[in-house]
Amino acid sequence: MAAVFIEDDPLPSWRDGRVKSVILDFVAAVCTRGSPEFRMPGERIAVFDNDGTLWCEQPIPVQAYFARDQVAAIAASAPSLKDRQPFKAFLDQDVETIHDLGRRGLFEFLLSINAGLTVDAYARRVRAWLSSTKHPALDRPYPEIVYQPQLELMRFLRTNAFKTFVVSAGGMYFIRAFAELLYGVPPEQVIGSTVRTRFETHDGHSELVKLAEVEAFNDRHMKVRSIGLHIGRRPLLAFGNSDSDMAMLHYTRTGKGRRLAMLLHHDDAKREHAYDREFRISPLIEGLNRREELHFELVSMERDWHTIYPAPRD
Amino acid sequence: MAAVFIEDDPLPSWRDGRVKSVILDFVAAVCTRGSPEFRMPGERIAVFDNDGTLWCEQPIPVQAYFARDQVAAIAASAPSLKDRQPFKAFLDQDVETIHDLGRRGLFEFLLSINAGLTVDAYARRVRAWLSSTKHPALDRPYPEIVYQPQLELMRFLRTNAFKTFVVSAGGMYFIRAFAELLYGVPPEQVIGSTVRTRFETHDGHSELVKLAEVEAFNDRHMKVRSIGLHIGRRPLLAFGNSDSDMAMLHYTRTGKGRRLAMLLHHDDAKREHAYDREFRISPLIEGLNRREELHFELVSMERDWHTIYPAPRD
Repeated sequence: MAAVFIEDDPLPSWRDGRVKSVILDFVAAVCTRGSPEFRMPGERIAVFDNDGTLWCEQPIPVQAYFARDQVAAIAASAPSLKDRQPFKAFLDQDVETIHDLGRRGLFEFLLSINAGLTVDAYARRVRAWLSSTKHPALDRPYPEIVYQPQLELMRFLRTNAFKTFVVSAGGMYFIRAFAELLYGVPPEQVIGSTVRTRFETHDGHSELVKLAEVEAFNDRHMKVRSIGLHIGRRPLLAFGNSDSDMAMLHYTRTGKGRRLAMLLHHDDAKREHAYDREFRISPLIEGLNRREELHFELVSMERDWHTIYPAPRD
Repeated sequence: MAAVFIEDDPLPSWRDGRVKSVILDFVAAVCTRGSPEFRMPGERIAVFDNDGTLWCEQPIPVQAYFARDQVAAIAASAPSLKDRQPFKAFLDQDVETIHDLGRRGLFEFLLSINAGLTVDAYARRVRAWLSSTKHPALDRPYPEIVYQPQLELMRFLRTNAFKTFVVSAGGMYFIRAFAELLYGVPPEQVIGSTVRTRFETHDGHSELVKLAEVEAFNDRHMKVRSIGLHIGRRPLLAFGNSDSDMAMLHYTRTGKGRRLAMLLHHDDAKREHAYDREFRISPLIEGLNRREELHFELVSMERDWHTIYPAPRD
């Protein structure tokens, strides 16, 4: 009988089963007029973490590959940097040393790259890099390391009048440069870690210039505060994959009425990666220990996803 | 001949003339496929100041009336505050002393009101106040002190796939509480001055609590930085009414391609108010001196607006 409905399945890359039913039931409950859990379109806010939730973060997050290529260019003009850490680790593709930076140390270094560029010029640089390079470990263009089931889920939510937001510890200006192209999420719906900017006027023109100073490291509790700052409504749905998403999932799940909080579990060594507690950049420990008590849905990549990556584009 | 088109006029409260033509031509140029100045919908960002641009700010901004009523409640339980400034000035409706606080002093006091409430509870309190009180000077409900021509302009822009944002020095959580109802602008498209928030968990529920500490006073250059932070695209259109909007208008106007920056001039003593250089809370001095050089359109309330306020609702 399932084949009869296959053309109407909004989530073809999600395997039939408990998790898929939970998602479909949730969307039906909050989007169907007359349902006791109906929400007006304006209240339909969904937030997604980025690295490891929307695309692959192994062995290092994509922004670290971008930094590596930027560092190579910087080192070419300032050779003394070649032997200095963390520059050396990026140049040598030394994953262990990059992991040793820790979550905050890594992201603060990534955020400092390209200080002095205008916000507009930085976005152009990111887009040029993203469209001209491949993910070194997967040997695929970056649009093809995005998780196909998440593209379908975000599209399904938007079809049902949800606004989809990215809420990441990664650089806000980095993700904004490609979020519309890769995820269908416009820049104003991307929240991330930020550096300070400076307003400058030259020759009668105004620009916003990125500085090196970190303004907000958008992690854990800060993700909730930035949802307050940027959105001003409590989400109905939140999706993450690590302990850095726990506060955001908790804030979402404990709002009034029906809510859905999901954690992606990377348990698929064959098709992607199997990691959780031991991944130093973004561990999943508390999430596994407390998910039942907190009513978070654990999404198994191996069990719940039919497909991982999109088919290559022509 | 004009009467033939009157039903199709998207801006009926705007008088025919130069300014109205500039607006209509601008929207046609950036929204018509094939036009050399065509912009994709995602790029169609319009930003509006709030006080004095979208609604009346005389003799004091609306948020100061809200503060007055909150202060009265606070003073009832802590009588010693009654003789302390600026509490006394608000209780006495002493407009001169309130103006003496200056722009920053006034807004920082307004932002500190209701510290300790959750973001959600504060929004409910603002909405309850707004729907149950009248503007004391105009003796009209607050939805009827909004400028009708601006409602039409924002609706016209949205019909043409613009996203409309409010960018105000007023309190962000204050404006968000009513922006959807009054302006059709959802909370996530309201940018304003902010206090810090704290993430709290009680009895298994998470909340965001407003603190008294000002995080960002969203004025002048900060308006441009907050456009970078919250929107991440340079607007195509900006509308303000005071020198605090100059940076935002300049940033908008000096982007590539066709842009429109407008300044509302309160020159209508008969129907609203006539003020500019001398209004201490929000003066318009540099704007008048430099508007031609900077190619800002000056909108005369007296000359360009047919109607000021919406007709009373039943």
